[in-house]
Formats: sequence, C-alpha cells, structure tokens
Amino acid sequence: MTNLLRPEISTLAEYRLTQYPHRIKLNQNENPYELPLEIKEEVLRKLAAARWSRYPAFVPQEQIARVASFARWRSDGTLLGNGSNELLQLIFTCVLERGKSVIISQPTFTLYKILARSLGATVVDVPMTPTFEFDVTMIVSAARASGADLVVLCSPNNPTGSCLTREQVVRILEGTKGLVVLDEAYVQFAGETQVELLRKYDRLIILQTFSKAMAAAGLRFGYALGAPELMKQLDKVKLPYNVNIFTLTAVETFIERWHDIKWWIGRLVAERERVRGELDRIDQLRVYPSGANFLLFESLKKSPAEVFASLAGKGILIRDVSSYPMLSRGLRVTIGTPDENDEFLKAIREAV
Amino acid sequence: MTNLLRPEISTLAEYRLTQYPHRIKLNQNENPYELPLEIKEEVLRKLAAARWSRYPAFVPQEQIARVASFARWRSDGTLLGNGSNELLQLIFTCVLERGKSVIISQPTFTLYKILARSLGATVVDVPMTPTFEFDVTMIVSAARASGADLVVLCSPNNPTGSCLTREQVVRILEGTKGLVVLDEAYVQFAGETQVELLRKYDRLIILQTFSKAMAAAGLRFGYALGAPELMKQLDKVKLPYNVNIFTLTAVETFIERWHDIKWWIGRLVAERERVRGELDRIDQLRVYPSGANFLLFESLKKSPAEVFASLAGKGILIRDVSSYPMLSRGLRVTIGTPDENDEFLKAIREAV
Repeated sequence: MTNLLRPEISTLAEYRLTQYPHRIKLNQNENPYELPLEIKEEVLRKLAAARWSRYPAFVPQEQIARVASFARWRSDGTLLGNGSNELLQLIFTCVLERGKSVIISQPTFTLYKILARSLGATVVDVPMTPTFEFDVTMIVSAARASGADLVVLCSPNNPTGSCLTREQVVRILEGTKGLVVLDEAYVQFAGETQVELLRKYDRLIILQTFSKAMAAAGLRFGYALGAPELMKQLDKVKLPYNVNIFTLTAVETFIERWHDIKWWIGRLVAERERVRGELDRIDQLRVYPSGANFLLFESLKKSPAEVFASLAGKGILIRDVSSYPMLSRGLRVTIGTPDENDEFLKAIREAV
Repeated sequence: MTNLLRPEISTLAEYRLTQYPHRIKLNQNENPYELPLEIKEEVLRKLAAARWSRYPAFVPQEQIARVASFARWRSDGTLLGNGSNELLQLIFTCVLERGKSVIISQPTFTLYKILARSLGATVVDVPMTPTFEFDVTMIVSAARASGADLVVLCSPNNPTGSCLTREQVVRILEGTKGLVVLDEAYVQFAGETQVELLRKYDRLIILQTFSKAMAAAGLRFGYALGAPELMKQLDKVKLPYNVNIFTLTAVETFIERWHDIKWWIGRLVAERERVRGELDRIDQLRVYPSGANFLLFESLKKSPAEVFASLAGKGILIRDVSSYPMLSRGLRVTIGTPDENDEFLKAIREAV
C-alpha cells in the first residue's frame, strides 16, 4: 500500500520522542517558567469574547505588525506559522524537490533532514569541527560543490549550543548562491540576532519562535523574517488561516507584556553558566559552551544510555542525543529552575 | 530573487480573499451559531490550568481516541491537523511531485489545485456535468488515461453543493489505482459519510473538519481517516506538535458536549431548503440543490459582480465565484440564521 506514496516516504526515519514518567522535565528545551496567571487570564478573557465559529482574519495584519515590530523587521517581510516548523516546511517545499540539494551543518535539529528527505532532495551533511564549532569553510565549499539551493543553519545550534558570529553568517552568504535559512529558535539566550543582515541580504530568511524564551511551546507559534518580495512568494504556498485565534490572541498579549516576563531569560542564562561550571568540575564529563537554554555534555566513562537511565530512575528526564552524528557520547540537558538544576547536578554526579 | 525558489512558485496563483465591511457575513461557509459561553468557559478553565510553556503531547493519544470514536473510525487510522488544509498538504506532499498527476473534479475548492501545482504536479481538471453533478465516468477515464497518483473529491462539493453517492465513490475507487482523497468538510449537512468504505478500501482517505458543522473555524481543526498502515506513513511527514493546546483542549470539550450543540445542523439544513425554495421562485436566478451549508446560484441577467456589489452595499457579504471554472454566472451564499437569511433574500430580490 505504501507504493501509493513517493518512494522516500516509506524509508523515511520518523521524528520520535518517547516520554518517560518524570518529576523534572529537562528534555525538550522548554522554559521552566510559566506565564503569570493574570496574563493568561487576560488572553482567556479576550478569547471568551471572540467568535470561535469564524475564521481568523485572512491576513492578521495587526498581529503581523506587532510581531514584526517585536522582531525589529518589516511587516511585509514577516510570515506567521504554527511554530517555526511550519515555516521550515513551507520554505523547504518552495525550494527543494528531487535533484535539488541542501547543506545541513551536523549535528543539528533532526527535522531539517526529515523535511528535506521527504521532498526527495539530496542532503549534504557538513560536520562541525571536533569541538562543535561551525565549519564555515566546509559549508561554503560543500554548497559550491553541490550547487546547493538551500543552506540551513541553526544558531544557537540544537543540540550543541554553538553560535555563529555575524562575520561567519556573512561569509556563508557571500560564499554561496542559494537561500540561507538561519533558525534562531534560541537566539534570546545568546544575545545577538542577525536580523540586521536582512537589510543587506535578500537571500537570508531568519526563523524565530515563541516556544523557548517566550515560554509558549504549547501555543505553537513561530515566524519567518525575510525580504518582502521573497516572503510574498512563500506566502502563496502558506496555508490560509494557518494560525488559530488562540495563538493570535496570545501572541499579542505576550508581546504587550514582554517587559514583565523577560526577566526569566537572564535567570536561565545565569543558571546555564552555573550548571556548566558545575558539570565542568566533573571529571567523567566534558561539557561544551552554549548560547542556548541547554547544555551539551559527553559522558566519558558510562554510556549515555546508562546515564540517561540513572537520571530517569530518579524522575529526571534529559535527552540522550547519542544517535546524532558525532555525538556517540552525547547528552543534552535543558536548563530548568535553580531547584531543578540542583537536583539534576546531584543526580548526574551520582550517575557518572 | 524568485529564481531561488522552484519555478512553479512564482507563477502560482494566490489563494486570496478580500474582506469588505459587512453586517452579515455569508461568504465563508461559517456556521452562524456560536458555542454557548458556558461551554467556552469550560475550555478556558482547562486552559488556565494547563502549562503553556510545555509542548503538547508528542502523540495526543487521548484526543486522537476521542476524535476517532466521534468519527467512528480507528485511532491508529486517525491524524489530527490544523484544519483539513494541513492534512491535504501532507497527503499531497507524500504523493505528488513533478511528473505525477492529480485528478480534480471542477469546479471545486481552489486550494487543491494550488497545493498540487506548488509541488510541480500535473493537474487534470475533470469538469462536472452541466448541472454540476460529478462526472464519475470521466473521472475514472481521466485517472486511467493519465495514470493519476491521486484523485481529489469534495462531497458535498464546495462551491456547488453536489454530493457523491456511495455507489459513485465505489465506482471511482474500483476504477482507479492511486490514492483517493474524499474531503467531507460539509458532510454533516448531507447526512451520509463514506467512513464505512474505509473498512474495504485502504486507498481511501477521508477528511473532516470542525470548521463548518462544529462551528469552530477559529480553532483550525481537521482530521484525516484512513488505513492504519497508510496513516502511519503520512504521520512520518506530519510536523511534530502540529496542533496546539487550545485546539486539543477545545476539541475534547466539543465532542463531549456535541449532543448539546448539534441542534444547529438541523436548523441550518431546514433553512438551506427554505432559502433554496425562495431563490427558486426568483426568475432571474437559477439555484442548485446542495448537501452543504451553502447554496450555489446563477444570476441570469445581472452579472455576479453587480449582484455581489448590490448586496455588499447593504452590508451583506456573499461570495462571487464567477472566476471558478464553469461558474461565470455563479454566486455562493452561506446559510446564516433565519434573520440573516431573510435579509439576504430581501436584498437579493432587489439586486437581480
């Protein structure tokens, strides 16, 4: 029956996540802080008054304008989606097909490769350096050699935490010819966005999300920023009414109240550095610098599966990333609240 | 800059909808009835207690089971999406690419063609009969002649209201070899779903939505029903966490409270027949039978644009469908509340 579908689909790996029972959840790079009830209630009051029977606006102009202003970019260069995922899929669909190729710096977020392969495109993996820095020279030469139509970069990179400098992004843009997608899902934890580069490079698309720093993974909201002419073309393939009234309503309120809630970013960054320092003192581990709300570390003695299981046995869920390229000893922990991080640190010392 | 994208994209027509100021909105086949505030508040109370910072469940098993049971199909053959649109896009992506072809009975919902063309597939339009019945013989022979990988059917059909009988769907399934997608967005207004055919035909996928009969267009919720093995393959390409916590929460409550709200279907069906009878008595119009919550009619003297403008001038928004194939004189009106329908009837008599 699967011969009814394109040949890639049946051989495609699934993006899978098994959830284990847990007390402390540090496996999905979620923000441990929750919007104050008062702000949630503001959203819910607006929703109670809204008409659920009606489609959202065909072009939710007001929300687009707010998001664009929040991201410091133009409304006519901003597209809204159900998480960055939907926008990734949109861009990939508009660029890739059988015979086209995409450069992916590895290890990185698994979905890029699944999306590209599902469209029949050729994926050219470019390994990071042994210390998980982006290998810009290799990215550029691989893009040239394969005539790549798309380069996908995630900075800060999931699951390594590595960041691209502006100069590196510029080198990739100057050295390649296709579209460059920069996934900035974690950018608020790193400090520097590359949005300003959009003024100069109309082949660059930047993706951001409300799932991490904004603590709104349950809303599924992301957006794409790029040159207006390019975004207008992508908009043709974007499904109408893709973002629902809950998310549109909540996003407005999140942005209005951002000054009340953004304190948690500083807290998470400080905790990330504290946890990194503590992990660094454990001989059996090697931890890497991170610009995100998680840390990559390698278990030098016990296997990642053993370490994962030991923590899971105590109700602490982290991510075993040992199936990713180059990460056979890798684990990833999301930064939680100080108490959660303390429990994690205690458990990891016992586990290794 | 558009040469960064696949060649289809720049020539693709946009799916567009211009909203005019209005008092009475009969242009998007929305349900004029709204969920009682008490039921909305039940949803919102659950949402206030939910953690927005966390991703929805990787597989929202409980909601899938409820939707499957509501649709009288199996959980392992049910996929949830942001409206049927997302699931249409998913199916099209898994089947179509350059060199593949899709049969579309015309006139119908515009998005099918846009999605197919955006993937570079060949669209074979099969005209309905002059009285807007499905031309099953032509659909089958066109599918055979083109070796079609996909046949897309909408029943009741938007914008004609035409319905396929079970025997016709079976003839199409028996006469073709590719996947058959049956979009039942309006099925509750027609009475007969073809879900039972899924037991016999594992090449059939049925799409249903909460946007019409369920009066929840703002939620953006739809689902696909099909053979478990087939749906498992499609699920690999479905984006993780595609449906957000608002919609997952609301859908549960809608289904629990369905017996309290489904009265409005009978009301809308009765009103459809009343409005059709009234339109039928207007010499300058020809109205067609409909199994949906809208009516297709043709303006025999004034142009559709003139009729549309006359109604719009009175704040009544209907849909000018004269740009659709075969519908150069066509207009579509959604069935509203009895008062709205009365206002429409008064205005249309004056307009023609």
